[in-house]
Amino acid sequence: MRMVDIIAKKRDGGELTTEEIQFLIKGYTEGSIPDYQMSAWAMAVYFRGMTPRETGDLTLAMAGSGEQLDLSSLSGIKVDKHSTGGVGDKTTLVVAPLVAAAGIPVAKMSGRGLGYSGGTIDKLESFAGFAVERTREQFLQQVRDIGVSVIGQSGNLTPADKKLYALRDVTATVEAVPLIASSIMSKKIAAGADAILLDVKVGKGAFMKNLEEAETLARAMVEIGSQVGRKTVAVISDMNQPLGFAVGNALEVKEAIETLAGRGPRDLTELALAIGSRMLVLGGLVAGEQEGRAKLEEIMASGAAVEKLAQMVEAQGGDKREVYEPERLPQAAIRHEVIAQTDGFVAGIDAEAVGHASVVLGAGRLTKEMGIDLAVGFVLHKKRGDAVRAGDVLMTIHANKEELLRSALQELEGAFDIAANPPAEQPLIYKIME
Amino acid sequence: MRMVDIIAKKRDGGELTTEEIQFLIKGYTEGSIPDYQMSAWAMAVYFRGMTPRETGDLTLAMAGSGEQLDLSSLSGIKVDKHSTGGVGDKTTLVVAPLVAAAGIPVAKMSGRGLGYSGGTIDKLESFAGFAVERTREQFLQQVRDIGVSVIGQSGNLTPADKKLYALRDVTATVEAVPLIASSIMSKKIAAGADAILLDVKVGKGAFMKNLEEAETLARAMVEIGSQVGRKTVAVISDMNQPLGFAVGNALEVKEAIETLAGRGPRDLTELALAIGSRMLVLGGLVAGEQEGRAKLEEIMASGAAVEKLAQMVEAQGGDKREVYEPERLPQAAIRHEVIAQTDGFVAGIDAEAVGHASVVLGAGRLTKEMGIDLAVGFVLHKKRGDAVRAGDVLMTIHANKEELLRSALQELEGAFDIAANPPAEQPLIYKIME
Repeated sequence: MRMVDIIAKKRDGGELTTEEIQFLIKGYTEGSIPDYQMSAWAMAVYFRGMTPRETGDLTLAMAGSGEQLDLSSLSGIKVDKHSTGGVGDKTTLVVAPLVAAAGIPVAKMSGRGLGYSGGTIDKLESFAGFAVERTREQFLQQVRDIGVSVIGQSGNLTPADKKLYALRDVTATVEAVPLIASSIMSKKIAAGADAILLDVKVGKGAFMKNLEEAETLARAMVEIGSQVGRKTVAVISDMNQPLGFAVGNALEVKEAIETLAGRGPRDLTELALAIGSRMLVLGGLVAGEQEGRAKLEEIMASGAAVEKLAQMVEAQGGDKREVYEPERLPQAAIRHEVIAQTDGFVAGIDAEAVGHASVVLGAGRLTKEMGIDLAVGFVLHKKRGDAVRAGDVLMTIHANKEELLRSALQELEGAFDIAANPPAEQPLIYKIME
Repeated sequence: MRMVDIIAKKRDGGELTTEEIQFLIKGYTEGSIPDYQMSAWAMAVYFRGMTPRETGDLTLAMAGSGEQLDLSSLSGIKVDKHSTGGVGDKTTLVVAPLVAAAGIPVAKMSGRGLGYSGGTIDKLESFAGFAVERTREQFLQQVRDIGVSVIGQSGNLTPADKKLYALRDVTATVEAVPLIASSIMSKKIAAGADAILLDVKVGKGAFMKNLEEAETLARAMVEIGSQVGRKTVAVISDMNQPLGFAVGNALEVKEAIETLAGRGPRDLTELALAIGSRMLVLGGLVAGEQEGRAKLEEIMASGAAVEKLAQMVEAQGGDKREVYEPERLPQAAIRHEVIAQTDGFVAGIDAEAVGHASVVLGAGRLTKEMGIDLAVGFVLHKKRGDAVRAGDVLMTIHANKEELLRSALQELEGAFDIAANPPAEQPLIYKIME
C-alpha cells in the first residue's frame, strides 16, 4: 500500500477502504507517512468529502492511535458531553454535577480555552486548589465514590488527532467537515464514552456561522456515532449572543452555581435541562426527555445539584466553601459599567466581539502558552429582546488593569445593538438531531 | 503574508496576486515554506486551477528561482523545442542539426530518459566520447562556432521546479495542468529561449492519453508563452504507436542520421519537417511554414543536415565517423525476430507496451540511478496500416542478455494488433496551437 495511491484515490473521488484508512493513520502516527502527504490528502478530503463509513473508520483509527480510557469498572452507561465552543458557555459546569446527582456516572475530560472560546478546565481552576491533573486511578475512584470527576485531557490520548489537527491548522484544511467530525468523536471515544451528547453551537460567536453548516457537522457526528456503535445526539444551539449573563472564568463559575440552585439565567437553565435530560435518556435512567427534565428540576430545587458540585470540588482538592459562598472566588479590582445611551430594545449582542474583548481583558488566551486572569470578564444585564432605557446598565466589566479595560471597551464598540423595535424571536435550540 | 492564507484563498477559488505567487515560490525555494504547506496548495490548485495570469506569474517565479542562461551573446532569435515525451521520439536528434544547418542558433539543454520515455542526452551518448557536460562558455562558444550544441541540464536552473516536481510526484498532484505547464515553460525560459516549439504527445505511449487532455495542456503552455512574452507554438502529435521504426538509444541515433539524410521513416520525417519549419518561422528565418519545409528538405537532400550533426559530435568530443558509418555505433549481441502468425493489417502497435519492454531490455531506466544499455532496443518493420503476411518479420529485437530478451517478449505480448481489415486513418499531427 502506498500513500500516494491513497491520496490519488481520494483526489479522484474514490471511497477509501478500512485498511487504507488504518494504514494512513498508523503511518502518520508512527511518522512513516510524512506531513506533506497527509496535508495533500486532507486537502483532497476538503474537496471530495468522505462517506459515513470512511468517517467512522477514520474516527476509530484515530481513537485507537494512542491510549484509550477504560471506563468499564464504572457501572452504568457512560454518557459524555461535548460543546463545539462558544462565549459564556459554562454548560458543562452545570450539566456534569446535575446529571451525576441524578445517577449518571460522569468521568469527563475537558479542555482549556483557546481564542474566544472558554474552556471548562480553566473555569474549574477558579476554585482555589482544584486539581485538574489526576492519575487514572484517582479519577476513576472519585467517580465510583461520588459519581463525578472532571479533569484535563491527560495521557497520550488520540495522538493521531493531535498531530493531524496541528497540520490542518497551518494548511487551510481545518474546515473539512469529516475531519472536524472525526476529530471530535475520536476524542470522545478514546475517553471511554458509551453514548455522546453534542452541543453544536451556531452563530456569530461559534465556529459554525450558519445553521446549514452546523447541521452538516451535527449530522456527520451523529452518523459517526451510529457507524461506531455509540448512540449520539446533537443539540444545535444559538451562539449569536453569549450564553447566560457571565463571560469570564470565575464569573461563569458563579453563574453555574446559581443555575445548579435553580436561580440561573433562563437560556443557560433551559440549555442545561435540554442537554441534561437527553443525557439521562441516553444513560437509560429515564424513558423520555420530559421525565428527565422533571427529575433534573427537582434535583436543582432540592439543593442536591449544588451539593454534587461541592463534593466534586472537595474531592479534587478545592475549597467547597467557595461553592456555597461564591464571593470567595477570585474577584477583579475594577468594575466598570457600560450604560445605554438610548431607549429601545436589545436587537443583538455580538458574541464574537464579546469573546474577543474577553481575550483582550485577559480572560482567554490566543496561544496555548499564555496565562489567563481568572477574575476578569463581563456580566451582561440585558440580553437580546430586553427593553432598555437610556441610563440602564447594559453590562459590568470586571477588570484588573485600566489599559486592558480600555482596550476591551474598544473591542466592544457596537457589540450591543439597540433598536427601536423588539427583534424577532430567535430560538435557543434550533434543532435536535439523533 | 502568510502561506496558510494563500492556501485558503486558492482553496476557495480565489486568484492569487503576483506578489503572493512570488512569496510562495521564493519561500519554498529558500525553505521558509515547508513541503506540507506546498503540497496542500498544489492539491488546491489541482481542484481550483489557475488563471493564465497566475500561471504566467508562477512560470516566471520558477524560472527566476535559480540561475538563468543568458543567450544574448548569440545572434538571432533563440528557438527552443520541447517534447512531453514518448517512445521512439528521437525528433530533437533530427531537428536540432536540421534547423541549425538552416541558420537558427540551437543552444539546447536536454534531459535523460525516465520510465518508458527516452531522453536525448542518453541517445547522444551513443557516440563514443560525446560530452554532455560542458561549461557555460564552451557551450556558447560552440553555438557561435558551428550553430548548435545539445548538452545536459546543468547548473542550478529552476530549483523551485525541481523541488516542487519531486513533491508533486509523491502527493498525487502531478496531474494539475497549470503545474505541468508552468514546470515545462519555466525550464525553457530559464534556459534562455526567446520562442518555444512544443511537441505535445498524445496516446497510449504518452503522459496525455486523450486529445482533450493534450489540448488543455497545450493551450495552457501557449497562454503562458503569451503571458510572459515568449512566442509559443504547440504541435499535438500521435504517440499511440512508437515514432519511426527504432526504439533504443543507438538504434534511434542511426534512424535520426538516416532521417537527416532524407531517408528516414515517413512519420518521423514528417514530424521533423512540421516542427523544424515552424521553428524557422519562429526564428524569423522564413515567412511561412511551406517555405521553411522546402528549405529543410533541400538541406536534408544536400547532405548539410548530416554534416551539421557530424560537426556537433566532433565539437563535443565524439567520433564523427560514427555519423557517416553508423555501424560503428554500439551493437547488441543478440538479434531476435518477431514473426507474424497470420495475414492481415497492423491495427496498432501499443507504444506503452513497447516502451515498457524497452525498459525491461535495458534501454531505459526506472529510477534516476539506474544504468542503461545503449545498444539494445527494437526495430519495427511494420507500422500501423501496413499489410502483413504470416511469416513476415514484425520487428527485430536487439538484446544483450537472453533472460532480458525473454522478459521483453513477455511485455510485448499483444503489442502488435493484427486485424483482418486495414484500420481507419489516424493523423500523425492532430492539431497546431499558437
